[in-house]
Amino acid sequence: MDEFLAAALVEARLGYAAGGIPIGSVIIHNNEIVGRGHNQRVQQGSVIRHGEMDALENLGRKPAGFYRECTLYTTLSPCPMCSGAILLYKIPRVVIGEHRTFMGEEDLLRSRGVQVDVVDSQECRSLMQEFEEKFPDVWNQDIGV
Amino acid sequence: MDEFLAAALVEARLGYAAGGIPIGSVIIHNNEIVGRGHNQRVQQGSVIRHGEMDALENLGRKPAGFYRECTLYTTLSPCPMCSGAILLYKIPRVVIGEHRTFMGEEDLLRSRGVQVDVVDSQECRSLMQEFEEKFPDVWNQDIGV
Repeated sequence: MDEFLAAALVEARLGYAAGGIPIGSVIIHNNEIVGRGHNQRVQQGSVIRHGEMDALENLGRKPAGFYRECTLYTTLSPCPMCSGAILLYKIPRVVIGEHRTFMGEEDLLRSRGVQVDVVDSQECRSLMQEFEEKFPDVWNQDIGV
Repeated sequence: MDEFLAAALVEARLGYAAGGIPIGSVIIHNNEIVGRGHNQRVQQGSVIRHGEMDALENLGRKPAGFYRECTLYTTLSPCPMCSGAILLYKIPRVVIGEHRTFMGEEDLLRSRGVQVDVVDSQECRSLMQEFEEKFPDVWNQDIGV
């Protein structure tokens, strides 16, 4: 597995080990990880700190041009909120671990010029499948279902 | 002015008084304010706590059905991230103070069935104009420009 997707998966597993929703994300700039995060709905009671949002928040405030040189990796297809954040900050490329357990706003991202690459990782998918089967209520709350 | 938009404007002014970006939001359920917030980029160094996001976070975790009975008021047209959060949680109606100083994703929201009402408030506009003229760098960073 790509080292950056592997790092996002480490984040997802950290979240799961802490009792949370196992979705992780890393942000890459100049071939280095500059931001990492994972979903914080359970741990922090947050409704906005999805994995991608947590990585952005942990990256901190940057000038607009910085984001335009970044790639965002996420273990799961990004929901409307996280896709909106990608559009807001004009992140040009997103690498997605899998989109079989949840299909996010990939079409919207592509329609706005974002390069979207889907890895279709078995490891990412297995982790989400296990979680969704064990904790369907928490998962549904996280995606507004 | 509508009492709920007035409450969002109070939030915006609280943020401005604290040295922040003057955008405020309230969330209404059964004709009562259940969440309030304002942009926290300066105060908390946050890149995700726009006014609408701060109101959602302050509202806290709710079942999916709750959001579908809510209206979100915001002093300024919602950016892609905040619009995405509105879509994620399926908030059916958004009332916007003004969209002359910044046009958000109103078309996207409408295309997904969200009722979008624009008040075109002079008070909301004056506050943003004053801020954008005084602090253009902070403002541009907040909208990824």
